[in-house]
Amino acid sequence: MKLATLKHNGNPAVCLVDSGKQRYWPLADLIPGFGSNMHQLVQQFDAIRHQIQPRGEGLPLDASLLLAPIQRPFRNVFCVGRNYHAHARELSSSVFKDNDKNVQSWPIVFTKVPESVIGPNDAVALPKGISEQIDYEAELAVIIGKGGKNISRADAMNHVFGYTIVNDVTARDVQMRHQQWDMGKSFDTFCPMGPWVVTADELDGGNTRVRCWVNGELRQDGATPDLIFDLPTLIETCSRGITLHPGDIIATGTPAGVGMGMNPPQYLKTGDVVRIEIDGIGVLENTFK
Amino acid sequence: MKLATLKHNGNPAVCLVDSGKQRYWPLADLIPGFGSNMHQLVQQFDAIRHQIQPRGEGLPLDASLLLAPIQRPFRNVFCVGRNYHAHARELSSSVFKDNDKNVQSWPIVFTKVPESVIGPNDAVALPKGISEQIDYEAELAVIIGKGGKNISRADAMNHVFGYTIVNDVTARDVQMRHQQWDMGKSFDTFCPMGPWVVTADELDGGNTRVRCWVNGELRQDGATPDLIFDLPTLIETCSRGITLHPGDIIATGTPAGVGMGMNPPQYLKTGDVVRIEIDGIGVLENTFK
Repeated sequence: MKLATLKHNGNPAVCLVDSGKQRYWPLADLIPGFGSNMHQLVQQFDAIRHQIQPRGEGLPLDASLLLAPIQRPFRNVFCVGRNYHAHARELSSSVFKDNDKNVQSWPIVFTKVPESVIGPNDAVALPKGISEQIDYEAELAVIIGKGGKNISRADAMNHVFGYTIVNDVTARDVQMRHQQWDMGKSFDTFCPMGPWVVTADELDGGNTRVRCWVNGELRQDGATPDLIFDLPTLIETCSRGITLHPGDIIATGTPAGVGMGMNPPQYLKTGDVVRIEIDGIGVLENTFK
Repeated sequence: MKLATLKHNGNPAVCLVDSGKQRYWPLADLIPGFGSNMHQLVQQFDAIRHQIQPRGEGLPLDASLLLAPIQRPFRNVFCVGRNYHAHARELSSSVFKDNDKNVQSWPIVFTKVPESVIGPNDAVALPKGISEQIDYEAELAVIIGKGGKNISRADAMNHVFGYTIVNDVTARDVQMRHQQWDMGKSFDTFCPMGPWVVTADELDGGNTRVRCWVNGELRQDGATPDLIFDLPTLIETCSRGITLHPGDIIATGTPAGVGMGMNPPQYLKTGDVVRIEIDGIGVLENTFK
């Protein structure tokens, strides 16, 4: 099923979505007393999932209603760097120049602050005067359902609640000048997320296609079977010594085709529109201003 | 003033502490209706600070009552790497070998997950089977009072609520193998914090002494005037493009003398006791098990 956070009667509400029929059903109408946000829903999901099914015609889904599915993650978003071979090559002399040359050594994991999350209808604010090297990174994001620590690869996929799309917006110069990446990845509005969550039973996250367009020009076109570290390995990695909790988010890395990898580099400017599509999820599109 | 989170009548309570007289006063007894935790207190502080003064004898302060002053930071703790010259030198061929050789280029900032925080009476759990290279890092931590974005160095100290001590416990091998440091710094229990918060009016954080002992042996002895990047610069850095919020925590880096810098390296083992003292704050001591 697809679960979105929508502006319903003026307030954020978790809703079941039928993207084909373009209808939605507020969970509060399906489940008596339901008043949760997406983060709480993830925690309660096993107990109430049988109640989440369309009842009646539903309401007309207008894209303008969409908010970030998890509006405020409960802690920083885990993000994976250098996780597609072609992307590892395109930035091998810049972002990754000081990294271990063996791309298969260990996953690179950094974070974005939760307050950087915005929704499908929000604009990314270019940090003028701070950086002129703003870049996009289209990514499949995994949402953890069942928490755990030292999760094995074999068991990892049982811990996945679902998937969404994240644009891991990055200030390239800031990312590199700090050496550790969190700062250049965490600017206000730098984590567009959406359009909704697709539950794990409806999508094979390990076998889908990730594309990204800038102003209609196809820039990134990757597929998750090409991940250097697959989804079970990433979950094993992030839970090694660290308890993962329901609602944790792991952005799984971006395919080749970022602006910095072009010759000459093409950074984002006012008015640019970045559209990300992941097969089986949908489209996340944001304007930069 | 010193503000602690204590176990009072079986529950966590924010309390005013007189460390000299070894007495404490629950804020709920001083301020009618006060039911906040430390994070909320930081937000309300300007409005209620005049009410926070000892009334009556207070209660006897027993160290066993101390909890982490901010038990659960609202997002990952910002941490600064390589911020004392002698420490930069001692790890120049290991942790910092791939970093920009000019230590004054830009601060290195990474994060620890909020759930890694423990209090003065909690033990750090050695992650047996995952890492045998567990190290201590004694650090002065700044707690942000007034939020803001793009805060100038000149205005930075007006944004400081107070100070506490953090032990930035680190799995050295994990830190380096991931290249980005967040994972090797975020294991469960890897952020001892305490014993309390000293408000900014009572301590010059830019001029205090940071010491650390392991099993009684003095290992680290630094002073914050020796910081490569001073406190205003760190606040300017963390707020560059990123809105800081009340209760944000910035751990300011560790002096020379970590276990990895010894010859041969001395890592922590079961039963070790790490004691950190910062002049003007107090002592944070934790057992490793």
